[in-house]
Amino acid sequence: HPITAVRVNGLPCKAANEVVAEDFFFSGLHMAGNTANKQGSAVTAVNVAQISGLNTMGISLVRIDYAPNGLNPPHTHPRSTEILTVLEGCLHVGFVTSNPENRHFTKVLAKGDVFVFPKGLVHYQFNNGNTHAVAIAALSSQNPGVITVANAVFGSEPAISDDVITKAFQVEKNTVDWIQAQFFISIVS
Amino acid sequence: HPITAVRVNGLPCKAANEVVAEDFFFSGLHMAGNTANKQGSAVTAVNVAQISGLNTMGISLVRIDYAPNGLNPPHTHPRSTEILTVLEGCLHVGFVTSNPENRHFTKVLAKGDVFVFPKGLVHYQFNNGNTHAVAIAALSSQNPGVITVANAVFGSEPAISDDVITKAFQVEKNTVDWIQAQFFISIVS
Amino acid sequence: HPITAVRVNGLPCKAANEVVAEDFFFSGLHMAGNTANKQGSAVTAVNVAQISGLNTMGISLVRIDYAPNGLNPPHTHPRSTEILTVLEGCLHVGFVTSNPENRHFTKVLAKGDVFVFPKGLVHYQFNNGNTHAVAIAALSSQNPGVITVANAVFGSEPAISDDVITKAFQVEKNTVDWIQAQFFISIVS
Amino acid sequence: HPITAVRVNGLPCKAANEVVAEDFFFSGLHMAGNTANKQGSAVTAVNVAQISGLNTMGISLVRIDYAPNGLNPPHTHPRSTEILTVLEGCLHVGFVTSNPENRHFTKVLAKGDVFVFPKGLVHYQFNNGNTHAVAIAALSSQNPGVITVANAVFGSEPAISDDVITKAFQVEKNTVDWIQAQFFISIVS
Amino acid sequence: HPITAVRVNGLPCKAANEVVAEDFFFSGLHMAGNTANKQGSAVTAVNVAQISGLNTMGISLVRIDYAPNGLNPPHTHPRSTEILTVLEGCLHVGFVTSNPENRHFTKVLAKGDVFVFPKGLVHYQFNNGNTHAVAIAALSSQNPGVITVANAVFGSEPAISDDVITKAFQVEKNTVDWIQAQFFISIVS
Amino acid sequence: HPITAVRVNGLPCKAANEVVAEDFFFSGLHMAGNTANKQGSAVTAVNVAQISGLNTMGISLVRIDYAPNGLNPPHTHPRSTEILTVLEGCLHVGFVTSNPENRHFTKVLAKGDVFVFPKGLVHYQFNNGNTHAVAIAALSSQNPGVITVANAVFGSEPAISDDVITKAFQVEKNTVDWIQAQFFISIVS
Repeated sequence: HPITAVRVNGLPCKAANEVVAEDFFFSGLHMAGNTANKQGSAVTAVNVAQISGLNTMGISLVRIDYAPNGLNPPHTHPRSTEILTVLEGCLHVGFVTSNPENRHFTKVLAKGDVFVFPKGLVHYQFNNGNTHAVAIAALSSQNPGVITVANAVFGSEPAISDDVITKAFQVEKNTVDWIQAQFFISIVS
Repeated sequence: HPITAVRVNGLPCKAANEVVAEDFFFSGLHMAGNTANKQGSAVTAVNVAQISGLNTMGISLVRIDYAPNGLNPPHTHPRSTEILTVLEGCLHVGFVTSNPENRHFTKVLAKGDVFVFPKGLVHYQFNNGNTHAVAIAALSSQNPGVITVANAVFGSEPAISDDVITKAFQVEKNTVDWIQAQFFISIVS
Repeated sequence: HPITAVRVNGLPCKAANEVVAEDFFFSGLHMAGNTANKQGSAVTAVNVAQISGLNTMGISLVRIDYAPNGLNPPHTHPRSTEILTVLEGCLHVGFVTSNPENRHFTKVLAKGDVFVFPKGLVHYQFNNGNTHAVAIAALSSQNPGVITVANAVFGSEPAISDDVITKAFQVEKNTVDWIQAQFFISIVS
Repeated sequence: HPITAVRVNGLPCKAANEVVAEDFFFSGLHMAGNTANKQGSAVTAVNVAQISGLNTMGISLVRIDYAPNGLNPPHTHPRSTEILTVLEGCLHVGFVTSNPENRHFTKVLAKGDVFVFPKGLVHYQFNNGNTHAVAIAALSSQNPGVITVANAVFGSEPAISDDVITKAFQVEKNTVDWIQAQFFISIVS
Repeated sequence: HPITAVRVNGLPCKAANEVVAEDFFFSGLHMAGNTANKQGSAVTAVNVAQISGLNTMGISLVRIDYAPNGLNPPHTHPRSTEILTVLEGCLHVGFVTSNPENRHFTKVLAKGDVFVFPKGLVHYQFNNGNTHAVAIAALSSQNPGVITVANAVFGSEPAISDDVITKAFQVEKNTVDWIQAQFFISIVS
Repeated sequence: HPITAVRVNGLPCKAANEVVAEDFFFSGLHMAGNTANKQGSAVTAVNVAQISGLNTMGISLVRIDYAPNGLNPPHTHPRSTEILTVLEGCLHVGFVTSNPENRHFTKVLAKGDVFVFPKGLVHYQFNNGNTHAVAIAALSSQNPGVITVANAVFGSEPAISDDVITKAFQVEKNTVDWIQAQFFISIVS
């Protein structure tokens, strides 16, 4: 069937005279995400999928909620840097530089602290306190993408072969199978 | 005197092995800015001037505080789009498109609402409630710049000539002189 | 109804074998624009709206005519730097840097002089001579956009509220109403 | 010896408080270039080499003078598109698309006509009238570069070998030697 | 007729769930191109025309085969830098910088050598050995374009006028006609 | 001590008249890398660290050697897409898309096959044949960076805490300790 609207970056693009304020609007970032999952964290994204007016604008937001002991597990954004600020609670955060150094930069962030995760690097946030934590983060793309390392490596569909995983991680086949089983059942998106 | 460090974008750039986590860190965004000024608002910026590790990363944050009746007056960011979310209170926000339409898009934002101000357009936020309001906004540049319209037009140093201002705004000379006097005394930075 | 042509940046894009020299051509930049308006100036634009072959090329031209005492009023280009040269007459030109300095750089330009208005900054040209003046300017975008400060602030549709304007410009309500009345009647595009 | 100034793109960059209006200014584009050369044309460039404030701005200007029968010979700009307008006289202009079509788009331009030479393509302007012609052109880079095809192929230092040239152009060795002799004596810069 | 698929950069773009591994795949770069032509060389391209998944990715490959005495004649890529490595044989390579220097950088490359041809500059490779040579080169665009200097100048359709060519290359009309005749008969694409 | 050379992107940049052909040259890509390591693979890089003339050019090459059963383990390039062609042998290759799909695209590549690994995605190549395999790959950055997933997650310095790893990968503490021990001893760079 034919495409019935102008598209930019593959997404529909309204005629200028049909644009309304709602095209630049989203509601609900004050509401906690559901952290009742294995990782104990939840990401509420506000990017071009939620706000069509962000198309071509090169920026987006997320709210991240962390239960006690909650983790936003190691991941990368293939198309963006992230700058995060803590609204509530306390977070252990870190990122790892590329080969060959693989330097691990870490910081404990309290309320009002800000930290930068440079473009494309593996990073995480961990709430090892007893209370919920909340952060707002901005990303330098309207469509930053998220690659959760464990999901990509152990939870892909179809699975990466045992030969590759056992060699890459220097583990035995049953360990790989065990980890893959966790991620096939319930992938954190 | 000679430049004693490598520079990128005109700013100092550490050797990789001297970089520390603090180069990606800022503290204090939970603290309210001082809104005791004519506009009744305060912007706390976290860009490459505060976090050197943001250099080349294309993103930054601000916290904006608004007293009751406080205004973040009409301004542009010459190098960035802005995405804002309300943490506390309620804000009347708007932006105006370019010639010839000059369409004015407005929205009343409550806690948790998000709004986008597209790159380079004149925009503002106004707190017409009785309580303080607080917003966090992200900008798509590590050095977005701020051009407050009133400051640029009526508060420049030296002043733009009366001939230009009276013609541009279709006002009389004493009105211009009055407005300029306000801005020479106390420019909101 | 369906879109019947390939589009790039939202604009129609011909098949390569249908492109003709006229797609890169415009005629008439030697003709003076009509300066019989309140500002006494006229901009003749040659951008992607006039020459479809400029799409993706990142450049455009304008001719600007100035009656005696004519003004190209303070404005910004949200997506481009401008470089201007005077063909006839004499122009007082200026631009203002961003906060907190708001430095006003000015120059009197004679025939053959060239001046640069950096990306996104408020700038203007004023002909305070007794003869017509003409300039050619180039802009670093095929679709640079123009935000005339007075139009955006006082002539938007719908109007920005008096509360915002009076506070932003530190003027009384009737002054705002007066200025807005000028711009509702006749906006310079 | 040490570098004594901040540099951006390899060029000196003043501290913000030392910048003056002259850093955005050039004078003399109304003066005809000297066309007393083999090609009968002269290019007066106004780019980052003439106006330091153009650095990072992505735009520049040139004035081109053409004696009767004068030619701005086939050349490319490796880093920019060009948009040209005729101020005086009449020009035959053209550009050639890439392989395999090598389509030659041409147009005769009179005063006030505008033409676009897309990024990187071979193009030329030829004044086959009896009077001088003058054009202003804008380029989408502050440092566009010019590769005159004849200079690059027949006038390089050292010369490209006869084996390469005779095969590439399907000509005999003495023809190549003849052409190279013209360009070693006097290269049009 | 209507466009029946989403397009990006003017090219069709599949829905994410219809993408298959073959969209990122090409076969046959181990096979020698047919060098039985006047230049004695053949380019096998692998860019967005062969692999649709390269769209927006900013990279492509070519294999180049050279018969003994074969030449990849002087050309430019208007949108890319090239980095080349020799798989078999030996190549004389060079590029020429822009005006006014027109410096000719050359190197004799043996198997395993790598050379860079900077963006937009005229460059060539020549096999003056007795055996076939093979190179793999990468280009910094998914659609780099190729402008063969001789084709653009002497083989365009329609031809550039004798007036322009004789003046540009300082040759007589029959030489131009001779060269043009070679290229009208058989353009190397 | 002062910086004694102009720098671009933090790297030294020669004066134009000091540049030589060697600044665009590298030798040795025909030589097999040493695959006598745990992964049975070796990457020979030719980027801006090896060829200074690649600075700002947005491209680089690598040669990859694979022993029988050799693996170039799952990794990302934070700043580039990769296009790879097989020179010898046979490779099982794959990449995984981002959340929430984590689709795994795979292909078996024979000599002369080409495959694309899109920017920032986790990808790998595995030689499950009995003979050595060799590939050439190009990357769309002069400084693409490599993040080997296992090194970043299990081999960082200092280590990521057990709390984070056990939760992220849903494994027990001794499994994590075992994997980390492998990577502390011998990180593949």
